[in-house]
Amino acid sequence: MARSGEARGLADDVALFGDIILTHDQMVEGVHYLPDADPADVAWKLVARNLSDLAAKGAEPLGALLGYTLSDPQWDARFADGLAAAFDAMGGALWGGDTSRAPQIAGGTGGRVFGMTMVGRASHLPIPARSGARAGDALWLAGSIGAAHAGFVALTQDRDACGPHATGGAVNAFLRPTPLLAEGAALAPIVHAMMDVSDGLLLDTARMAAASGVSINLSRAAIPLHPAAIDADAAMRWGDDYALLFALPADIAPPVSAHRIGDISAAGGGALLLDGHAVAPDNLGWEH
Amino acid sequence: MARSGEARGLADDVALFGDIILTHDQMVEGVHYLPDADPADVAWKLVARNLSDLAAKGAEPLGALLGYTLSDPQWDARFADGLAAAFDAMGGALWGGDTSRAPQIAGGTGGRVFGMTMVGRASHLPIPARSGARAGDALWLAGSIGAAHAGFVALTQDRDACGPHATGGAVNAFLRPTPLLAEGAALAPIVHAMMDVSDGLLLDTARMAAASGVSINLSRAAIPLHPAAIDADAAMRWGDDYALLFALPADIAPPVSAHRIGDISAAGGGALLLDGHAVAPDNLGWEH
Repeated sequence: MARSGEARGLADDVALFGDIILTHDQMVEGVHYLPDADPADVAWKLVARNLSDLAAKGAEPLGALLGYTLSDPQWDARFADGLAAAFDAMGGALWGGDTSRAPQIAGGTGGRVFGMTMVGRASHLPIPARSGARAGDALWLAGSIGAAHAGFVALTQDRDACGPHATGGAVNAFLRPTPLLAEGAALAPIVHAMMDVSDGLLLDTARMAAASGVSINLSRAAIPLHPAAIDADAAMRWGDDYALLFALPADIAPPVSAHRIGDISAAGGGALLLDGHAVAPDNLGWEH
Repeated sequence: MARSGEARGLADDVALFGDIILTHDQMVEGVHYLPDADPADVAWKLVARNLSDLAAKGAEPLGALLGYTLSDPQWDARFADGLAAAFDAMGGALWGGDTSRAPQIAGGTGGRVFGMTMVGRASHLPIPARSGARAGDALWLAGSIGAAHAGFVALTQDRDACGPHATGGAVNAFLRPTPLLAEGAALAPIVHAMMDVSDGLLLDTARMAAASGVSINLSRAAIPLHPAAIDADAAMRWGDDYALLFALPADIAPPVSAHRIGDISAAGGGALLLDGHAVAPDNLGWEH
């Protein structure tokens, strides 16, 4: 355990404290979930978003603190069910937190914001960071992209035509993502860099390139699209898939199911390239 | 540092993890702060609310994670100023967190919710809890009550008549409370029980009585009212004063400035009494 002065502060959207990792993510009404969502799904995704941050560090979940906006009793009970199911299925436990009434705003209907801090412990030191990719490494992706986008489209634009399973699990992937905790733990000892792709493949790859001071060239044809993905261009710019992006020495094969999607070279000629062409910073995707 | 299985989970609104203490508090628009508040004050109070939880544990602040609802750039910058000022004045540092757009709600104007997880380290083991008060102990209060209530009244009902200092610092006490970190650390080694009174003296005393399985009799005349306090009855039922409530063996004098406000006896005759008369559970104050 690090003494007080050794806390390393913010790195890769998580706080590191010796071998302890703290993540904090939010679920905001109308931003991260639809206002008519099942509260159990909201709770699940809040846990999953945090656990995906831990997965990228190869960490095991320990416990969580929840900032909860109270709703009606039925909504609250359903949220609690989802929370329990998520911890049961993926790990972690509720340690504490704070509840409050919803925001009171003149003319408004209120809005719910849920925040969770998750505490995890690294399984391997040093803890993987997004900043460690090196020229000559290969870039890999565990998991696929495009399912969450397809699920969101199904829910918002073609709701009547789609049941929860009508699009190959895409709706379920959007509502109840599964963080790759086992994969992250298996990869942590060997990767040069690792992060989750929660904000979209292009944006997060550009972040790894910038943090590592390298140039990354993605091979479009190699990027694993989920069978339900609607469009590769959209899938690369949409978040919520919670795949793991990692850099490995070119001669090492990952010990988990993954696709080699790119190559890493010395900085110059653009931080992020797609089939050799630089991707403009304003064409990476959206930021929450 | 505790190993994984030793995390003790929720106790007294904080999570304990070996000698590490995690608190989580929120500032919700229209609930914990007025919609036209200075963002720097909102940030300050968010830090102070968490630090008061640490004070009650005799803990030193280490770092914090912030769940932040983005506003306009000017608001965000002012909030950041207040956050920096609060950490600088009271301790702690920003380690990380998550930002999001404000809730998007049909017909609503959005609402801001800020959540903070604060990490602290206990200065003394065992960590004080609210559950340790014993029959024969004396009950003490460090700090006073009533200033935050007076400040709130000045801000909402008689704004034109009051400047920030017109009511003896009451407005400042409401907007920028000061947690009693040094007092908490000095008291931790000797108290049988300790908690902060953020939710109101009567309510929080009743909670200590219930958690400890004792009866507590408050002496009304002994309760220290802030010079600006408007009304003792209201002051006892209003939160936000962030005083420290603690139980000590009757023959021990506290090493900090404090008032002896009550006596603790075996359970029976009501958990909370005021000058010997039981206080009804529905007359304790308000819960957030």
